[in-house]
Amino acid sequence: MPARLANRMSHIRPFEVMEIQTRARELVASGHDVIYMSIGEPDFATPAPIVEAAKRALDTEPIGYTSACGLSGLREKIAWHYESTFHVRIDPSRIIITAGSSAALMLGFGVLINEGDEVLMADPGYPCNRHFVHTMGGVPVNIPVGADTNYQLTAQQVADNWSKRTRACLVASPSNPTGTVMANGELQKIADAIQRNQGELMVDEIYQGLTYDNPPSTALTLEGADSIFVINSFSKYFQMTGWRLGWMVVPEAYGRSIETLAQNLFISPSSLAQHAAMAAFLPETLAVIEERRIEFRARRDFLVPALRALGFHIPVVPQGAFYVYADVSDVSSDSATLARLLLENAHVAVAPGRDFGKHLPNKHIRFAYTQPIWRLQEAVNRIATLLGKTQ
Amino acid sequence: MPARLANRMSHIRPFEVMEIQTRARELVASGHDVIYMSIGEPDFATPAPIVEAAKRALDTEPIGYTSACGLSGLREKIAWHYESTFHVRIDPSRIIITAGSSAALMLGFGVLINEGDEVLMADPGYPCNRHFVHTMGGVPVNIPVGADTNYQLTAQQVADNWSKRTRACLVASPSNPTGTVMANGELQKIADAIQRNQGELMVDEIYQGLTYDNPPSTALTLEGADSIFVINSFSKYFQMTGWRLGWMVVPEAYGRSIETLAQNLFISPSSLAQHAAMAAFLPETLAVIEERRIEFRARRDFLVPALRALGFHIPVVPQGAFYVYADVSDVSSDSATLARLLLENAHVAVAPGRDFGKHLPNKHIRFAYTQPIWRLQEAVNRIATLLGKTQ
Repeated sequence: MPARLANRMSHIRPFEVMEIQTRARELVASGHDVIYMSIGEPDFATPAPIVEAAKRALDTEPIGYTSACGLSGLREKIAWHYESTFHVRIDPSRIIITAGSSAALMLGFGVLINEGDEVLMADPGYPCNRHFVHTMGGVPVNIPVGADTNYQLTAQQVADNWSKRTRACLVASPSNPTGTVMANGELQKIADAIQRNQGELMVDEIYQGLTYDNPPSTALTLEGADSIFVINSFSKYFQMTGWRLGWMVVPEAYGRSIETLAQNLFISPSSLAQHAAMAAFLPETLAVIEERRIEFRARRDFLVPALRALGFHIPVVPQGAFYVYADVSDVSSDSATLARLLLENAHVAVAPGRDFGKHLPNKHIRFAYTQPIWRLQEAVNRIATLLGKTQ
Repeated sequence: MPARLANRMSHIRPFEVMEIQTRARELVASGHDVIYMSIGEPDFATPAPIVEAAKRALDTEPIGYTSACGLSGLREKIAWHYESTFHVRIDPSRIIITAGSSAALMLGFGVLINEGDEVLMADPGYPCNRHFVHTMGGVPVNIPVGADTNYQLTAQQVADNWSKRTRACLVASPSNPTGTVMANGELQKIADAIQRNQGELMVDEIYQGLTYDNPPSTALTLEGADSIFVINSFSKYFQMTGWRLGWMVVPEAYGRSIETLAQNLFISPSSLAQHAAMAAFLPETLAVIEERRIEFRARRDFLVPALRALGFHIPVVPQGAFYVYADVSDVSSDSATLARLLLENAHVAVAPGRDFGKHLPNKHIRFAYTQPIWRLQEAVNRIATLLGKTQ
């Protein structure tokens, strides 16, 4: 460790699932057959029409800087997507293309958060959210959520935890790591509560489209939606993780500040990824993605009962994303130990609860169903063997 | 403007050259022939072997997340590049692949800077440097530099400006906007002074390779180089701006912290850009780039005397990058007004001095020679006409 490190680093933990991934790659390199159920990355390759669009761009476009907010053609396509899917009109000027949702979170917290400002968020939740807030000098307030509230924040919790230092609240739906969806009715109540407190609501919709029981929804259809920050991504639903491209819909009043910060921190998002993403909303791309969504649903419907049969407790069936957040209390006293055993001995890579917060992390493991069913079956078999269970 | 904006935003100005670029594109869209000498982007397309590598990757590689520090193969290639070009051995574990040098600056300042910490840098300089420091709550200390010191900091200036709050010093060589190179002798003195003060030295080498009077150099050959942060990029020398890829060589003691922050803020750099950059060090790529370097030199050798003949004062001939930072005092009382006139009336896009700092910005304009000589000639003709000069 160096002699002097910025204070923020004492709050910023390694993103453990990235470490697990590194260890898993080592095991693979030494000849082991590892089943990856660890990182939040679809096993499906980027849909062919997007890949073909990238190749065409390589032949015909200069791969140079774009405007900091992205190509206007792509911003218009996203607006069209909102209109055709959710029947809501968004001015393309409010749509900022970003280097993944990571950059969107950085920009959003960058324009909002002063030293000591608080941001409310659910625990468990996506770990980097906390760390973006710390990076900007803020204080994440992790509110424990459980099965009783579908692992989502409630308006009551938001009101109870609001303080003079609270600047914003972040909601993720569908959620990572729990895969649960917040009903728009509850989200409206949260939006109203935040509005009354003159705070800001950020809604992470990066798993939008990956829902299995109800059609997708967006916070942009709420009342007062034009003052909400909505974060989205091409990574998950459109299966473009390694391209690093996302977007954010911002309240008009913040648009100019977000643009200024984006110019300075990022110059522009990847030009090539933007040209590729122009093909994301083509009917042939959406058809591929819809097939894959149905496959994800089949995997969920296989994995949840299979894990339950092994003694994992899954109190609510996840409604979206591609995660099962399972309570391991009945099979292990410590989820991190279990995760390590699963990786080293069963060669099944999963993410321990401690990546996702401080609320009962040792009781939980996140399984990503980013493998075909026959591989999920193999993973279940290996776990059964490790736990000494006969099926 | 929104009711409440984070304090940092009061220090973060628009990156004006991006605004000029936007206005220039509007003029082009309405039928005008604009000569772009504004943004720091080579007019050369990405070299074909890199483009071909990207296409191959699209056919054969999953475009997924990589390790946060990048592909080990690319880190090894960069280490090999340092060894073959500069005869210095760098452990690949110290080489962090980043989403452009922008991400490298964010990570570097992120692990170093606390609220109120000072960072020394030359004025004029790359504007985003100041804003990265502000983003992390720090205070950039802009040290005026002029022709007498080749527009570079001196060890004496670093010593004179060091305070109890100084945490780091940033040097850029070749420099943006002045194109000047710091001799390694002076840089060694600066490194020694900083070492004595237990501070950190960051050296921006993103224009490395684009030097016209002397071979390229690196701070990594200095004594004590293993405690220096060195920032580099595939954007300029390798002509990959829109791909958003760079790297940073970090002191071993900081490696783990940089990795942790990178995992959280970026997940990973673009996988596709990394696969493409694997071809950056091929002999056939380097041959293309060397031809282009010679072309850049010819442009400089044309532009500097041509601008001088028009009354622009250029006290030192720039030694690298692709910029001329010209004193406009003899032709205009305000460089921003002149830049606007040049864009609107002569359709020549340039960057006014105020983008680059507070030291005599109104007297200076940055010309980027990112156009072929016949276009530079046309720009010179238009400027002559605007200024009422006959050539």
